[in-house]
Amino acid sequence: MKERLVLAYSGGLDTSVILKWLLEKGYEVITFTANLGQADDFEATKKKALKIGASKAIVEDLRKEFITDYIFPAIKANAKYEGRYLLGTSLARPLTAKAQILLAKEEEATILAHGSTGKGNDQVRFEFAYRTLYPQARIIAPWKDPEFLSRFKGRDDEIEYAKANGIPVSVTKKDPWSTDDNILHISYEAGILEDPSLRPPETMFRMTTAPKEAPDKETVLEIEFKKGIPICIRNLNDEKEEHTPLGLFAYLNEVAGKNGVGRIDMVENRFVGMKSRGVYETPAGTVLQAAHRDLESITLDREVMYIKDFITPMFARAVYFGYWFSPEVEYMMKMVDESQENVTGKVRISLFKGNADIIGRESPISLYDPELASMHKEGEYDPTKARGFIDVSAIRLQAWANLERKKGRSIP
Amino acid sequence: MKERLVLAYSGGLDTSVILKWLLEKGYEVITFTANLGQADDFEATKKKALKIGASKAIVEDLRKEFITDYIFPAIKANAKYEGRYLLGTSLARPLTAKAQILLAKEEEATILAHGSTGKGNDQVRFEFAYRTLYPQARIIAPWKDPEFLSRFKGRDDEIEYAKANGIPVSVTKKDPWSTDDNILHISYEAGILEDPSLRPPETMFRMTTAPKEAPDKETVLEIEFKKGIPICIRNLNDEKEEHTPLGLFAYLNEVAGKNGVGRIDMVENRFVGMKSRGVYETPAGTVLQAAHRDLESITLDREVMYIKDFITPMFARAVYFGYWFSPEVEYMMKMVDESQENVTGKVRISLFKGNADIIGRESPISLYDPELASMHKEGEYDPTKARGFIDVSAIRLQAWANLERKKGRSIP
Amino acid sequence: MKERLVLAYSGGLDTSVILKWLLEKGYEVITFTANLGQADDFEATKKKALKIGASKAIVEDLRKEFITDYIFPAIKANAKYEGRYLLGTSLARPLTAKAQILLAKEEEATILAHGSTGKGNDQVRFEFAYRTLYPQARIIAPWKDPEFLSRFKGRDDEIEYAKANGIPVSVTKKDPWSTDDNILHISYEAGILEDPSLRPPETMFRMTTAPKEAPDKETVLEIEFKKGIPICIRNLNDEKEEHTPLGLFAYLNEVAGKNGVGRIDMVENRFVGMKSRGVYETPAGTVLQAAHRDLESITLDREVMYIKDFITPMFARAVYFGYWFSPEVEYMMKMVDESQENVTGKVRISLFKGNADIIGRESPISLYDPELASMHKEGEYDPTKARGFIDVSAIRLQAWANLERKKGRSIP
Amino acid sequence: MKERLVLAYSGGLDTSVILKWLLEKGYEVITFTANLGQADDFEATKKKALKIGASKAIVEDLRKEFITDYIFPAIKANAKYEGRYLLGTSLARPLTAKAQILLAKEEEATILAHGSTGKGNDQVRFEFAYRTLYPQARIIAPWKDPEFLSRFKGRDDEIEYAKANGIPVSVTKKDPWSTDDNILHISYEAGILEDPSLRPPETMFRMTTAPKEAPDKETVLEIEFKKGIPICIRNLNDEKEEHTPLGLFAYLNEVAGKNGVGRIDMVENRFVGMKSRGVYETPAGTVLQAAHRDLESITLDREVMYIKDFITPMFARAVYFGYWFSPEVEYMMKMVDESQENVTGKVRISLFKGNADIIGRESPISLYDPELASMHKEGEYDPTKARGFIDVSAIRLQAWANLERKKGRSIP
Repeated sequence: MKERLVLAYSGGLDTSVILKWLLEKGYEVITFTANLGQADDFEATKKKALKIGASKAIVEDLRKEFITDYIFPAIKANAKYEGRYLLGTSLARPLTAKAQILLAKEEEATILAHGSTGKGNDQVRFEFAYRTLYPQARIIAPWKDPEFLSRFKGRDDEIEYAKANGIPVSVTKKDPWSTDDNILHISYEAGILEDPSLRPPETMFRMTTAPKEAPDKETVLEIEFKKGIPICIRNLNDEKEEHTPLGLFAYLNEVAGKNGVGRIDMVENRFVGMKSRGVYETPAGTVLQAAHRDLESITLDREVMYIKDFITPMFARAVYFGYWFSPEVEYMMKMVDESQENVTGKVRISLFKGNADIIGRESPISLYDPELASMHKEGEYDPTKARGFIDVSAIRLQAWANLERKKGRSIP
Repeated sequence: MKERLVLAYSGGLDTSVILKWLLEKGYEVITFTANLGQADDFEATKKKALKIGASKAIVEDLRKEFITDYIFPAIKANAKYEGRYLLGTSLARPLTAKAQILLAKEEEATILAHGSTGKGNDQVRFEFAYRTLYPQARIIAPWKDPEFLSRFKGRDDEIEYAKANGIPVSVTKKDPWSTDDNILHISYEAGILEDPSLRPPETMFRMTTAPKEAPDKETVLEIEFKKGIPICIRNLNDEKEEHTPLGLFAYLNEVAGKNGVGRIDMVENRFVGMKSRGVYETPAGTVLQAAHRDLESITLDREVMYIKDFITPMFARAVYFGYWFSPEVEYMMKMVDESQENVTGKVRISLFKGNADIIGRESPISLYDPELASMHKEGEYDPTKARGFIDVSAIRLQAWANLERKKGRSIP
Repeated sequence: MKERLVLAYSGGLDTSVILKWLLEKGYEVITFTANLGQADDFEATKKKALKIGASKAIVEDLRKEFITDYIFPAIKANAKYEGRYLLGTSLARPLTAKAQILLAKEEEATILAHGSTGKGNDQVRFEFAYRTLYPQARIIAPWKDPEFLSRFKGRDDEIEYAKANGIPVSVTKKDPWSTDDNILHISYEAGILEDPSLRPPETMFRMTTAPKEAPDKETVLEIEFKKGIPICIRNLNDEKEEHTPLGLFAYLNEVAGKNGVGRIDMVENRFVGMKSRGVYETPAGTVLQAAHRDLESITLDREVMYIKDFITPMFARAVYFGYWFSPEVEYMMKMVDESQENVTGKVRISLFKGNADIIGRESPISLYDPELASMHKEGEYDPTKARGFIDVSAIRLQAWANLERKKGRSIP
Repeated sequence: MKERLVLAYSGGLDTSVILKWLLEKGYEVITFTANLGQADDFEATKKKALKIGASKAIVEDLRKEFITDYIFPAIKANAKYEGRYLLGTSLARPLTAKAQILLAKEEEATILAHGSTGKGNDQVRFEFAYRTLYPQARIIAPWKDPEFLSRFKGRDDEIEYAKANGIPVSVTKKDPWSTDDNILHISYEAGILEDPSLRPPETMFRMTTAPKEAPDKETVLEIEFKKGIPICIRNLNDEKEEHTPLGLFAYLNEVAGKNGVGRIDMVENRFVGMKSRGVYETPAGTVLQAAHRDLESITLDREVMYIKDFITPMFARAVYFGYWFSPEVEYMMKMVDESQENVTGKVRISLFKGNADIIGRESPISLYDPELASMHKEGEYDPTKARGFIDVSAIRLQAWANLERKKGRSIP
């Protein structure tokens, strides 16, 4: 009897070749395709898999779970890897892997396979999830398999194999870069992008209008959060509103994208050790994180925010490295959640030709007190007390400067 | 004989009233005005001080020192207070204070005075410097002085006093907000800005064109750094170049400002404990920090950058809180400097209607290796080795998940 | 009608003089004395207060609350200020302040007073609690009050005043140092201890036997924790057991103290900016924290522990600085609690002449897996996989070293 | 012609078997043995290697370099992995590897081999150094080699092979644990120690007298540091002094060891992901680090120490994980060095039956100011200023508590 295997299947050339190759190796293959909002024809993907020989081809719509259980926690954490990357792929992979594993368990499949290369981060994200959530499963990762690697040295070998095996090959010329897309982002890397000094062509972008082509009139949105989670987007230009996770996220992608918001061009450090150039479009994610960060500024205490901000880069890094299902990410997510109790309120943001500018914020439970802040109203604040505050705080500085002077140093 | 005092003097109503009041109290007053690039008529300032009764009125051009010894170190550190504020005022105050102190020592003045309010951060920045660098000096801070406070309850009292004492009062209506400006930024706070939900009026901004009024054509700049310090700005539209600190900084302000780059609207946490809304224009600073951060991405090792990024918020906070002359800022500046040895290269950046987008970077000492990064060239990288990398890294995760399962938890 | 005031009252000379002085100033004074386990005759304290003129003298036994709500959270956090000080006084003050405030509210007293000096940390701990928990109250802190300070220049003035006012003055000669004691520790500072190069006299210590006088035979204890909290101490020498918070803590003080465990001599940095020499005896606290830390080593994941260990110094510092009732301490305590879910098990510790040595630990939910750890059993671990783990991890190092060599540096 | 290989050779059964096996495989083998102070007969080691068939057997005395360039930097950093382990082996391996590499380059050997197992940290430490410092070299690590692993399943196979090949096998019964020793420490792990609940037998320890067998009289030492580096040990019992790195370190091992100081029993987290029980004796290291830490308390500013203390666990972890030759360790060592400018002075420490208690410290450039610290001398400190310090610092707390109360929470 054949061993049963679940393959993470995108429908592209790579995973189609892998599917065929696995069938040739004698496995029964069920394909699993996660609908995370990527611009694909999932019916076609399904048919293609079955045509190649999959015993089943499962497509699952995971968009809502992706938004509520993966994207929103990252928004709450203000997570950006190396200060910029909004983790569009890093958040998607563990969800795909988890759903693939659940399917495998249901189908009593004992092997998990994926098509990620042996040089990137995605293989790690897939396989950490496999090892952690389904340790009994065997993993087949063709791009780390010497036999597969010796057979397929490059794309030409794959095309030839596909043609020989009746696998449909897209007739459109392949883009000179690789992409990964889902409802959170599109990433572009490799190919001509490997020279980090070259500007990507404008034609590459698909989720965002070029700032110079974007409307000449700003769009003002109001974003409402409850305990750190976006619950409503209101377009103040036309009063259109969206309230569901999927509805508001999709709408925000549309509006921010139309206004050219959310492009990033960066060089990042992969977990496996090399630097890599990535270009990203993350329209809704960019706007949501900016708005969330801003709302925290009036609802979080200064020191709580300072501590949370130390956790943020550790969290982003752990997620980027593939540790979504890990004790440390679980621990840091609890830390993040504990901070969000009061992060409730509204932020207004102007979208205009690439800009997403915060222009106002309010909260029913704000720590901002205009009376206290005002330079011109005295209120309960007694300015003469600042004398003692400063002088006592300066004791340590004076001791230091005295010693430095005693050592012969001129200060200033 | 009268006690001699040096007053930090801006020439505005506040410090002019203070000057007169100090003279009435019987002090000999020397005024000190730092030229940090603010849009003032320094000759008029001088004359005004002397007319009111200052025994000397000193204006010192500190712009170059401000750029090289205060702004550039902050750029090297990527310093942003609470993730956004570029420290335009925080960096300026200690320099003004230092120069004021040097003047006081030279003039054998034993008293230092400033006009900052008793509720803000600036008083702390001035007085930490006074206490640390000139501990023998007495400090007079009228806005923390009960006598002064009881005499001047508001702006109306000041105007009346000014008129009564022949102090010229500007006839133009006062802006409904306060500003502080220098070559790095203009800040706006207080007045109508105290409601953080209200958008500031477009007429407020002076350093930057409104994005919608900015040119329809992008400006592409190339910024060259050597060991973390900008040494050349080249406008790739017209090949104009600037090489001196002052020259390139002023030019960058002009170009970035014209393209609407560098506005920030935020609520920040003051050292003295309350939240405060601030709006900033920082054209050159915004562009330089974005470019510097990007250049680090190809010249710093991943782990070095990760460690440095933990220092950055501590550094920004210490500077914001007024600790410029302190053992900890000195220590962190050394840490930053140690990291900049290889931060040499060029970054290209597109300025367009408020956007400052990185579009390319290169370095003669780059850690970025396209061969190594490429997904499609194998090079020296053996992808089969990733098998062991992942599996060994996953040991810890498996141990954790096993235990959680044993405890009865369902994972996933 | 007299204003009613609650004074934190120890019964010593200082607070007795303050009590009388407050009565002279025309206040109605209720004294509040917290029983935190210090070696005092609380009946005598009460009588003394009433004799001097207090309208009421309240003593409250807070020992259990002190242990469960203040000491145990610090144990869970492994909190040591500056790596050594176990926070014996820092944890006590906020509890005393809180109970004093509750009494004041109950008694409708609108003034809170304490006898801490104007140079130390304790005034801050008292007054942060006052300001935060009872902001309407007025604070009287005689050692910061110019009138009181001008009247009482030193201890001699106090003694004279006491004698003149019929306040009993202890006939025993005052120790040449100050102490603060409670069930967690005794601290010694000031006086002859102000020379940090001089060794404190052996006669000073009261909670611990001198190591050289301690028993020649070790005592082995087994300490059991549940979710980070000690729930049982078992003396393996004689099988004596204690299970209640107060019972086990008192017993542990006795046993550890008898074995000379828990002395620390250090110089620490006060919140108000100066360095201060402190000597401490913390027998039970020392043993509990060592045991707790050790139990975490088998029950916490490596990365969770690493993250928690970054929180620990921030937590200890905030508590030491007086921020017990603050958003940040509340936030960090939640972080600590989230980590303790699995910190359940037993630790065995040998007490002997000053040493508290861990000699074994076990947990029903241990992450320690002897099969996996064993160098000699292969188990499920495949050592050949370490090849890929190391080689992939080394990619980054090689890139760095190559660049350094290219730059002309000799490595090694 | 045979390929030339340098093997890190200890002279024990393991590396002797490996040596023979490598010869059988056809390599020319040069053995390299680092004298790091371990208790070995290096002449015998040499002879054994040559007898088995090594073409050369090199022994190099690296003790001084080990102390000055590896141990002292770790002392300056106060480095302890997971708060306890003093890195005795972690510091030794990179030095052995470096010297082995230099020998290989000199001898034009292109292969490096070591005998560390595939489950531990040491393999990583060796091979990171190999990859980084000699990337052209091939690595042979028999305990990760499938052929070797299939031939040698355990110690019995090794003994049989040794006997069959004339390799001398020690007749003494093997200890039921593994050890690694050098001048800094002896570590014990594996075997009977794999049960973390069992106490190690007293007979195991070799560097330290059992506390109960140690002298009944304390030994008081004075340790002098210059810029963080120990330059003199003086025994105040007998005035004996040592000034050289090797001299003072060896002497301190002797004195501290005799007094039973420096044992640790812990469970630590290996880099490769599993937990491991280790028992250590580190007499001199324990005393030096305690003394160094204490000297920092009077010579480092509070905030500088706080920042440095955040670096320390990152440094210790990187060293433990094998990253000695890495950009991040190099970077952190510079950070540590920058902090040590003033760490000059003397610390007195009492050694007694396992205790190493600090009893006094002094420095010519101390930040400790007894006048300022004194609770009873007023000096330049004005206690009334603490009123403003506290009240301004409490503003933030009051705003928070007000909001919490407004939300309906009872505080307290």
